[in-house]
Parts: sequence; structure tokens; C-alpha cells
Amino acid sequence: MIETKLTKSLGLKHPIIQAPMAWAAGGELAAAVSRAGGLGSIGAAYGELDWMSEQFGIAYGQRVACGFITWAILQKPALLDYALEQQPAAMIFSFGNPSGLVQKVQRYSIPTICQVQTFRDAQHAIELGVDVIVAQGSEAGGHGEKRATFTLVPEVADYIAANAPKTLLCAAGGICDGRGLAAALMLGADGAVVGSRFWASKEALVHPNMQNAAIRANGDDTIRTKVVDLIRNLDWPIRYNARVIKNDLIEKWHNKLSDLEKHLYEETKKWNKGLKNGDPNKVAAFVGEVAGQIREIDYAETVLESISSEADSLLKERSRYVLK
Amino acid sequence: MIETKLTKSLGLKHPIIQAPMAWAAGGELAAAVSRAGGLGSIGAAYGELDWMSEQFGIAYGQRVACGFITWAILQKPALLDYALEQQPAAMIFSFGNPSGLVQKVQRYSIPTICQVQTFRDAQHAIELGVDVIVAQGSEAGGHGEKRATFTLVPEVADYIAANAPKTLLCAAGGICDGRGLAAALMLGADGAVVGSRFWASKEALVHPNMQNAAIRANGDDTIRTKVVDLIRNLDWPIRYNARVIKNDLIEKWHNKLSDLEKHLYEETKKWNKGLKNGDPNKVAAFVGEVAGQIREIDYAETVLESISSEADSLLKERSRYVLK
Repeated sequence: MIETKLTKSLGLKHPIIQAPMAWAAGGELAAAVSRAGGLGSIGAAYGELDWMSEQFGIAYGQRVACGFITWAILQKPALLDYALEQQPAAMIFSFGNPSGLVQKVQRYSIPTICQVQTFRDAQHAIELGVDVIVAQGSEAGGHGEKRATFTLVPEVADYIAANAPKTLLCAAGGICDGRGLAAALMLGADGAVVGSRFWASKEALVHPNMQNAAIRANGDDTIRTKVVDLIRNLDWPIRYNARVIKNDLIEKWHNKLSDLEKHLYEETKKWNKGLKNGDPNKVAAFVGEVAGQIREIDYAETVLESISSEADSLLKERSRYVLK
Repeated sequence: MIETKLTKSLGLKHPIIQAPMAWAAGGELAAAVSRAGGLGSIGAAYGELDWMSEQFGIAYGQRVACGFITWAILQKPALLDYALEQQPAAMIFSFGNPSGLVQKVQRYSIPTICQVQTFRDAQHAIELGVDVIVAQGSEAGGHGEKRATFTLVPEVADYIAANAPKTLLCAAGGICDGRGLAAALMLGADGAVVGSRFWASKEALVHPNMQNAAIRANGDDTIRTKVVDLIRNLDWPIRYNARVIKNDLIEKWHNKLSDLEKHLYEETKKWNKGLKNGDPNKVAAFVGEVAGQIREIDYAETVLESISSEADSLLKERSRYVLK
């Protein structure tokens, strides 16, 4: 059992937050993670009332968090109100300027968690007084930026120690097993946010064909690209792109975005069909560089407990690599 | 004191190798690191006989390693012979296919260390039977690729455990303090290769103005770019680029490489002048994302001992962030 300021503050058994992955993190996954002692979250992402309502229904009875994509939800303020009515265990914001949203949530005394991708955004979120900063490295699956987990976490930890010692810090990006959690703690984090490894769990709303593509891939097979947002007609700010597993689709368009724009109608149609059928060559799997460490599709509880118990052992042994 | 298979195998006091940084890692730095119990190395890089001879002379009496850039030294095979005559503590190869070089060094029973940037290159180097694999993440200063330290290390560690358990593994990229070393050990490494933090040491062959630029920078201020190789007329393979601190020069040309080619003669002249004067706006500082954690220019011995003793404390405390 690993007790940190994060487990104490949020009342968790394990210092692990499940990332609110758009569409993939529904009520079943969120509830399973929270039930097993982590903090589960619903990936409300771009905000769609029917989907949110269904997923909060499924998770009913478990304390789960709700995660939004900041720039998207700023355009749909009513959905923040809806989320707050669900009395989530925490609100998680990523990608964009969260000032107004954070201030609102703070009035409801619900913990605020802000995921950032740069040191500057970390400083800004810390000044807003958020409860937990998530420093997310580029190795993460899905949307992100360029900084790496290995340097962003200690740099933010130093800033927190000097300026806002009550702020908690989680590492995100590249963490899928006990080694990653133990390393995150060494780097100065109070816990970890885990995405891809839960994306590849039985409770995730992900087609098994897509999950199997992640099992087959190694870490060299992923790429950060703009293709997937263009095809899905999502208006992401220029600074962000998404890490996915390379496939025929990505290889075809990654370096030809302006050509893709000309064929958008057909390509979007093919994407949507591929999404339905779970065709890993027509749709991209949103998985991080940890693809190389994902070898089976487990239940979320198994994932959570294995990460936590492996980290616990490593911390006790002072890593497997230190000779006694 | 941290004892690992690396310290045992190479006869070190600390599980730390100083990266053979081109031009910056001369004999004084290499000798200082080896004297203090790490493995120092001379950054013979592109290979220039006069420079190598001078630096091996300065390091005389200390067991230091010699590091080459693989693709460059393949064009100058005589320099490998020269290096072998110096009886280096190890030969380090990075960037390119090291097959022939490794086979030759193995005949001299000198330890071989191969730095790789992808899982596939790690597999290849392991098959060659090298003694130490260095898994280098994109957060590193200077040349590199896209994979991050946080995921590349455990993925390679798993491959080694299954296929070549005698091969040792070091992490590189993002490691500049005890947190980084402790995290690297947790991820599955037997030690760490440290570059930028030694680049910013008193013994490095780096102009103090450039080192001060690194102190002023935070981790967001670095970028991977092709500009510096183009300006220096270095024919690097397309897959590699170099992480440097952004400055006027980089901002001007990073997205205009074909324009830069048209102005190469003047720009190279300005670079060389800036290099002489230590002008951090005309020359780029080859520093990694750890720029945000570099706060002073210390002696190499101080750097080495502080990394090692901080890591030792963190491992004993099971990180500062685990509650007792």
C-alpha cells in the first residue's frame, strides 16, 4: 500500500487517477476504478449531454470524477453545471485556459485537477489555486504536446515546493505499470494519471480490435499527428496534436494535411464506418508510447492493483536494480 | 552509495556515465568524472585527430571512455584504431548502425556501450552483443529522436530480461539530479547517462555565456531542430535532430530550412563568430529539457556526488512523497 498526500487528500487506496479519455472512459470504467480504490473518471471531453447522462447513470453510486477538454467545454457552459449537479469526486480540466471553469468549481468545494503540458501552463494553474496539477508528457496517448514526463514533473515539483506547497502533483504520460508509478514518485509526483493502460481494459468503451492493435504495437509504432482531429472535424488549437498508433490512414495523410482537407468528406465517412466496425487500419487507436508494454486486456481492478503492488515492491526493494 | 550491475561491471562508485558530448566533453571533464567515481568520457564525436589527441593527453592517467557518432566515424575508420590505442575504459557509439564498429571493439575486449533512440535499434544493438545499452529519450540535449525516456527504458528492460539478461541498461535524456537517477533505476535501468548537467559544469569545454543561457532557460525553452546541423554543414541522417535552447537564430530559421540553405554562407560565418564570443543569440546551447532544473555551474565532482547521494536518499525514503 502506497500512501501519499494524494491518497490522503482524495480518500483513495492507490495514488492512481484514471484519465478521463474521451468516449473511452465511460461510467463502467470510472466506477470500476473508483470501486477498486483509485480515482475513476468519466471522459466527458467535448461535452455531450446524452452521453454524459448515460455514463453518470452507469457509474451511479460510485464517487467518480468528470473530465472536460477545456477549450471545448468553454463553448458549452451549461454542461459544466450539469456535471457539477452529479457531485463528482473531482473536476478535471485539460487543454486550454481553465481560469473561469476552475473558479466556478472552487465555489462548489469540489476538488479541481488541471492537466498541463508545459511549465508555463503549470505555473498558471498553480496560481489559480487548483488542488492537483497533472504534468503530462508527450509520450501520453491522445492529445498532448512536446515536453516529456521525465523533466516536466521535477521542474513543476520544484516550482510547487517553492511557491504553493499545498498543491498536489501527478505525473501523466508513459505510466502503465508499477515501474512507472514508482518512477513518478521518485521524480516528485504524489501520484500518477494512467490513460492508455485503462484504455486497454475490459471496461473501456473501446472496440476489442482496436485494443488488439495496441497489444501488437511496440512503442516505436505511435506518432503525434493532426490527422485524427482534421478527419473528425474537431477544432483543436494548433499547439496540440494526438498520439495514436500509426496505420495506413496515418501514413497516408500525416505529411499531407492540405490534401486531406480536399478529401475530408470521404475520409470522415470512412473513419466513421471504421469506428463502428473496429477497423484498426481505418481508425487510429489513441494509445501512448506504453503500447510496447501492454500485453493483455485486463479488468480495471487488475490493472490498478498490479500497478500499485508492483510499485510498492519496487519502492521496498529500492528498485530491482540496486544490489543489496 | 548505490551499487548496481553497472557499477560492479565497470568498476564504478556511482552508476553514472557522463555523456560523450561533441566538443564539450574534453579530457578535463572526462577525467574529473572518472576520478570522482563515475565513468567519464571524451566526446570524440565526429572524430578529429588533433582534438582527440589533445584531450586524451589531458585525461592521461584516468580510465575514461571514448564516444563516437557512429555514422560519422564509419567514414574515418583510422580514428577508431587511434581511440583503441588509448585503451579507453569503454567505447560508446551513438546514431547509426554500429555493427562493424562493435565487432571490432569486441576483439579488443573493451566494453561496448551503444546509445539507441528506438526500441528497434535497441533490439539490434542487443543482438550485436554490446555490453551496455543506453536508451536515450527525446528530452535529451543535443542529437536524438522522438521516443521518451519514460517508456523506452522499461520497454527495452523487458526485452533484455527476456532475451539477453546479461546486457546492462542505462537511461539517458532528462536525468540531471538524484530524482532522475532514482526514477531511471525504478524504470528498469542499471544506471544513467548524464549529458546536459555535465555540459553545465566547470570542466566542460563550453563558454560560460552559453552555460548562463541554460541557467536562465526553463524546460519549455528548448526545441528539437535541424537548423544547427545545416548551419554547421554536418550531414546528419534525416531521422535525427538536435535539442537546443531556442534563441533568435532558431526562431528565425526553424520553419524556413530551405531559405536558410540560400543564406548558408553568411549564417555559418555568424555562427562561427558567435561560437568564439559565446553569444547565446548567435549560437545555440545544446541542452536538454533539464535546462529548467539547472541552477548553477558546479564542478563535475559536485554534480556527480549530489546526483548519487540524492538518489540514495530517495531510494531509502521510498521517495519523498510516500507517507510513512
